[in-house]
Amino acid sequence: MQPVQNYAARRWRTLRRSMADQQIDALLITHLPDVRWLSGFTGSNAALVVTARGAALFTDGRYTVQAREEVRGARVVIAGRSALQEACAFAGSRAQRCWFDPEHTTVADLELMRGGLNGKSRRGFFTPLGSPLVSTLRMVKDAAELSLMERAANLGCTLFEMMLPRIESGMTEKALAAELEFLARGLGAEGMSFETIVASGPRSALPHGRATEAQLPRKGFVTLDFGVILKGYCSDMTRTVRLGRAVDEERTTFDAVLAAQQAAVDAVKPNATCGEVDEAARSVLRAAGLGKYFTHSTGHGVGLEIHEQPRIAAAQAARLVPGMVVTIEPGVYLPGKFGVRIEDMVAVTEEGHRILTPATKSWIEL
Amino acid sequence: MQPVQNYAARRWRTLRRSMADQQIDALLITHLPDVRWLSGFTGSNAALVVTARGAALFTDGRYTVQAREEVRGARVVIAGRSALQEACAFAGSRAQRCWFDPEHTTVADLELMRGGLNGKSRRGFFTPLGSPLVSTLRMVKDAAELSLMERAANLGCTLFEMMLPRIESGMTEKALAAELEFLARGLGAEGMSFETIVASGPRSALPHGRATEAQLPRKGFVTLDFGVILKGYCSDMTRTVRLGRAVDEERTTFDAVLAAQQAAVDAVKPNATCGEVDEAARSVLRAAGLGKYFTHSTGHGVGLEIHEQPRIAAAQAARLVPGMVVTIEPGVYLPGKFGVRIEDMVAVTEEGHRILTPATKSWIEL
Repeated sequence: MQPVQNYAARRWRTLRRSMADQQIDALLITHLPDVRWLSGFTGSNAALVVTARGAALFTDGRYTVQAREEVRGARVVIAGRSALQEACAFAGSRAQRCWFDPEHTTVADLELMRGGLNGKSRRGFFTPLGSPLVSTLRMVKDAAELSLMERAANLGCTLFEMMLPRIESGMTEKALAAELEFLARGLGAEGMSFETIVASGPRSALPHGRATEAQLPRKGFVTLDFGVILKGYCSDMTRTVRLGRAVDEERTTFDAVLAAQQAAVDAVKPNATCGEVDEAARSVLRAAGLGKYFTHSTGHGVGLEIHEQPRIAAAQAARLVPGMVVTIEPGVYLPGKFGVRIEDMVAVTEEGHRILTPATKSWIEL
Repeated sequence: MQPVQNYAARRWRTLRRSMADQQIDALLITHLPDVRWLSGFTGSNAALVVTARGAALFTDGRYTVQAREEVRGARVVIAGRSALQEACAFAGSRAQRCWFDPEHTTVADLELMRGGLNGKSRRGFFTPLGSPLVSTLRMVKDAAELSLMERAANLGCTLFEMMLPRIESGMTEKALAAELEFLARGLGAEGMSFETIVASGPRSALPHGRATEAQLPRKGFVTLDFGVILKGYCSDMTRTVRLGRAVDEERTTFDAVLAAQQAAVDAVKPNATCGEVDEAARSVLRAAGLGKYFTHSTGHGVGLEIHEQPRIAAAQAARLVPGMVVTIEPGVYLPGKFGVRIEDMVAVTEEGHRILTPATKSWIEL
């Protein structure tokens, strides 16, 4: 792998090329994962102004040392009052117009931004981007990112294997989640990507069942959906295991979900549309008579945020590109009875794909 | 205490009175803590429209059962496509103008909202509130909220006491944070109010030092700043303890911070301004020659969110009112050397105040 500087330089070049293509003279970036991806800055307050020739990152006095250590490709300015307003004043002095991200800018922030422009014609200066810019670039991970994400995903798999012998009927879902998160910290996770999902017995039929005080049943499914954060990058995986002997319907449902998941993983390759990948899973479940119980989309991009572009969902025309990392997570939920979901993180490669979460997906009966 | 319905009814009445006072015919509420406070709904997708006579909460199919169980004071509508847009269409059919919260509405959302209005004159319909409405009402907690917050705060104190015998030089800050969070779950916390801060040795001089791989020193301070969530309500407390014998400067600094904290707590009473409470702490530290090392404000409101109104900061003219719950958390940070911060949660009462976090603030040498 190349040194960090080279990756940083390439991200800046890629952004400037996109800006030139879209005739964007100046861009204000305030969404923190975007700021981090581009500049390396991990503080909680930042406004980054990028023009064709320069860039300046505005933050506050808490981050004087940290910003100078972390930031690449931009001048650091410690703002006296409001980082956002000083960034806007700077943009006003360098450009005739400045684009911003309407999905991560509140109406109140936009007022503040205009207030920072002192003197300039305020109405026309700030222009909302027609489509996301930095988050579109962030879809394609470079080798440095893929390496971190693979480590995060592997940590998730290790956790799953460590948890297997601890899963016992009678313990509460919350206790299971608490143990998993405690072990995650011990293995070096900075935190969890999202609130750990433990859904057992009939609760496995809830696609987003948080861990509750419910006790794991003597007989039933346990769905674990969790992820860790490593150097800012999120992992995400789901496995469904079995407590006690299953009846036929339970086993055939599990097998159908596994087949659907595998079909969608197999469909991941450069140039496939996201809709095709979704359909690969959906058609298997439809053929098994379970289509109507698969009530969500097949997956989503993942990276510095747990939910990123692209969406792996019905009719999505966006095409996969090498370097993207997506989840593949079909599920079947039979209300009041049980549910099964199986999820991997999958990287798109030149040749097809690579699964980042190698933990077994086989039927596990505890 | 009165039954839940009475509290719910009172919140609705208070809001409608404020709306009438400010001549607000219709209000769109999308900030989830505001939605929860008013209606009881805890789902992750909601748009609530309130008029003088009616109210409707729009959410999606995932929450059909939950919304009907939880929501009080509003009709529940399960939206087919976009809860936000259907809420706006509804508002358009009921009012000539609709106010919204510009601090919690993105520029992209506002476009969506206008798109939901089909037909109506779109420009003038949505009006940003000049000052926060629901979050202003949320500053004053009712007996049901105070009871929950007291339980959350007590849980925090129990945790601190359980952690004391576990704090040892050589263990990492992260391990300490992981143990604390694991115990919190065991005691019934739904989660942590924010990422647990453990800052030891010279790192105690960082006001927001996250837990790192740094090992607790043989001699030095350890600052623990943490909170738990119980039924949605956040607790927040900080204690600084000592490993090994202290030198004079360390002990006198601790004593000055404790005196400043106590002075600010004593200043908490109805009708005091937030600036006066801040000044009570600041003047003690100034007199001790430490004023310039107290680099942040004295505290903040807390409730369904970890940071709420009011701000306990210099020159804040807002006055305390019985029912408010604020943190009092002065600190002194000597760069490269050490830092001390002590924080309580304090409720404003008719008579003065009540500390919700009774854990000892005395000098503790481990």
